[in-house]
Amino acid sequence: MSRIAYVDGVYQPIDLPGIQVEDRGYQFADGVYEVCAVHHGQLLDEDAHLARLARSLAELSIPAPMSDGALKIVLRETITRNRVSDGIVYMQITRGVARREHGYASGLKPVLVVTARATDPNRRAAVLEHGISVVTVPDQRWARCDIKSISLLPNVLARQEAVEKGVQEAWQVDTEGLVTEGAATNAWIVDANGVLRTRPADGGILNGIVRQILMSLIGDMDVSFEERAFSVSEALSARECFSTASTLAVFPVVQIDAKKVGDGRPGPISQAIAARYIQHSLIEN
Amino acid sequence: MSRIAYVDGVYQPIDLPGIQVEDRGYQFADGVYEVCAVHHGQLLDEDAHLARLARSLAELSIPAPMSDGALKIVLRETITRNRVSDGIVYMQITRGVARREHGYASGLKPVLVVTARATDPNRRAAVLEHGISVVTVPDQRWARCDIKSISLLPNVLARQEAVEKGVQEAWQVDTEGLVTEGAATNAWIVDANGVLRTRPADGGILNGIVRQILMSLIGDMDVSFEERAFSVSEALSARECFSTASTLAVFPVVQIDAKKVGDGRPGPISQAIAARYIQHSLIEN
Repeated sequence: MSRIAYVDGVYQPIDLPGIQVEDRGYQFADGVYEVCAVHHGQLLDEDAHLARLARSLAELSIPAPMSDGALKIVLRETITRNRVSDGIVYMQITRGVARREHGYASGLKPVLVVTARATDPNRRAAVLEHGISVVTVPDQRWARCDIKSISLLPNVLARQEAVEKGVQEAWQVDTEGLVTEGAATNAWIVDANGVLRTRPADGGILNGIVRQILMSLIGDMDVSFEERAFSVSEALSARECFSTASTLAVFPVVQIDAKKVGDGRPGPISQAIAARYIQHSLIEN
Repeated sequence: MSRIAYVDGVYQPIDLPGIQVEDRGYQFADGVYEVCAVHHGQLLDEDAHLARLARSLAELSIPAPMSDGALKIVLRETITRNRVSDGIVYMQITRGVARREHGYASGLKPVLVVTARATDPNRRAAVLEHGISVVTVPDQRWARCDIKSISLLPNVLARQEAVEKGVQEAWQVDTEGLVTEGAATNAWIVDANGVLRTRPADGGILNGIVRQILMSLIGDMDVSFEERAFSVSEALSARECFSTASTLAVFPVVQIDAKKVGDGRPGPISQAIAARYIQHSLIEN
């Protein structure tokens, strides 16, 4: 089956050209996006994703192309047309099409693209069982990582460095030696004192939806938590490490820069948090 | 006349969709570009632009889509089809089309887009006579501004701030208070001691082609020159300021943050350098 994309009002085969060369998303990375998980045909934490999308658009003064209600219909139709039961739905909004100038005119018509695809249903269990490995790389990104923009070239280069070293993610490190986040995931540790920690959400990281949900869930759990940045050496001496992202929720990290974290296997708190999130997913749907 | 773009092998109307939604340029800003001035139908400093394009591609491990010889033919054909005698030609190369993942497979086929357009032939004379005004803004960009990538959202936001304040360019300022460069121009001053200065080319700025050419030309001129960064206050107390870019070469800056530079008119060294560059252009062609 050929994949179908929603492209500025039309459902069409994904490989049919649908974007103009002077779309500002293509020439200036002038746009934003969201990725939402789909479980059993349902969108997970959809309202939280749409709220963050609205914030990203507002930060860039890009008007919403349609109401949330209309967007929800497009997301569902794209999922249905691609027969996705478990997977992800991707939405991207760019400022619109205009003769190339860095500054932009008001009144441009934003361009919405939506795609969806199935993901391997066994991957989550495999990741929870075996964990992933990461490398650390200098964080080379801009000052507004809180905006979920498509200006992602630094993230591409970070992730590619991981791929070329045979691992799954790159944790980016600021000039003070503190971990900011992964190329496409937030970073967490259970430190040597047993405290669960993740970096505060400022301009240095994207405030992940799974990150936000977990922070609301761990209040119920028997774990102390601090929203405080950690260094690479704190991560290396941590009891557990993990990454979070909407794609698979919790990714235990068992190796950093080819050194084992703890005993080199996913730890109990990571597992418990993953289980708690899965429970949330079932209630959410 | 409708404008014509070269899009991945085809000359077509510029508003005909030619780009796939999974072009990595559209989803990740994973691509590079160049803008070359056209004078009397001739490309100015073409080889220098193609050399920088090759460098940008190499830094991102994107293969060239064709030989320089073939690219030169496409550039000329695009200029001809758009009947551009004086203007600019724009070329963009993205990594290619692939299912969305931050990391990239090798062997992707890069996508080349070329556009061209005429510019107002009176604008250069007007800018040289009256100058432009700039505002200063914090430099929010990433660490690899030496790569001429399409990951330009920070530049868009900087320029837009200028536009909304009614001026033509934004000079970006690093955390030490030193000017890096404009949103799409390099920045220069003739300081209070009469020394011509521009910031050294490192990861903090793009090494402009006009910047490079001017540095090779000023050896002949009666002006002392230092490749050394300057602060906003040094710019405000400078005798002259100007910006450079391929579009118009030299833009005298007569006002910074609503304060006059010198007597508020383009200065003699800026004018002499602009004249020297125009002389170079005539010889070059």
